[in-house]
Amino acid sequence: MVRPGGRSARVQEAVHTAVRELQAELGRAELTIPLVAARAGVTPSTIYRRWGDLQELLSDVAVENLRPDTPPRAHGNLAADLRSWAEQFIEEMASPVGRAYIRDALLGAPDGDNAARCSAYAAEQIGVVLARAAERGEGAPGVELVLDRVVAPMMYRILFRPGGLTADYARGLVDDLLDDSAAGR
Amino acid sequence: MVRPGGRSARVQEAVHTAVRELQAELGRAELTIPLVAARAGVTPSTIYRRWGDLQELLSDVAVENLRPDTPPRAHGNLAADLRSWAEQFIEEMASPVGRAYIRDALLGAPDGDNAARCSAYAAEQIGVVLARAAERGEGAPGVELVLDRVVAPMMYRILFRPGGLTADYARGLVDDLLDDSAAGR
Repeated sequence: MVRPGGRSARVQEAVHTAVRELQAELGRAELTIPLVAARAGVTPSTIYRRWGDLQELLSDVAVENLRPDTPPRAHGNLAADLRSWAEQFIEEMASPVGRAYIRDALLGAPDGDNAARCSAYAAEQIGVVLARAAERGEGAPGVELVLDRVVAPMMYRILFRPGGLTADYARGLVDDLLDDSAAGR
Repeated sequence: MVRPGGRSARVQEAVHTAVRELQAELGRAELTIPLVAARAGVTPSTIYRRWGDLQELLSDVAVENLRPDTPPRAHGNLAADLRSWAEQFIEEMASPVGRAYIRDALLGAPDGDNAARCSAYAAEQIGVVLARAAERGEGAPGVELVLDRVVAPMMYRILFRPGGLTADYARGLVDDLLDDSAAGR
């Protein structure tokens, strides 16, 4: 889905805002496309044309809610940066609100790009952390390896194996990865 | 959900079979609970009472379809057993049919146990592989570590980061885990 500026961007913002407000006011079981359209000041057919159905719209809003709005905090070394990023990630994603967003994101069209956007956000944040390490001359694993070793286990457990999703667990994933990477060099 | 034998088990089997047949004949968009009930020879209210809605029923059938029906193949050593299990897992789960089952499984009630049952099946199979290694006196990682290092990355990429899901990738996850475990001992 292309998201140019101008009218299209204004429609998207109005519709997303309407969804967030109505979810908060009415709960998500009460949401309908006509309600969202009325609140956003657009016609229902505008929404159907652009998003197809309510599930796809909720998926789009969820992914937008999962978009990080700040770069990862900087602590001066790779281990501290990655640990703090992973702790924040698990805290946000394993929360009831985070779980609901992940679930909604996955409920979008199977061939759509909503779920892939979630992963791209994580990859981007990790890329920032690794670029800082490279600037300092620290050895660091690649982005894909960090996704496999740190992000994937957290998301797998959030979706399939609830329990034990603590900051300690997140830190342990980072420490094990960095230990193994150091041993392999 | 308790699944005792007798009438309850027969109802479950009839309803599951009806869902599978109707999905194959009509496609899943055409499925309704009254249609499933008629094919299974039960009343719609029996289905509503037991599963709540169509999404929950489809989720239950999907998890049942994901249940392994044979123990992992035995090749005489841990590396070969784990590699062959991971290759088969990625082949099945990353296929269009596998993806549809995983998606359906996740669409069950968020507080339900359908997704957890998928993970329990994987843990059980891995447990068999690790028990064989222990009998042979081979050193081996624990089940939870195999889930984090082998299963989680495959499932994460299937759901969030499609592409690159090859048998080579699966084998690489196993080899890296066993190398790191050996180095740590």
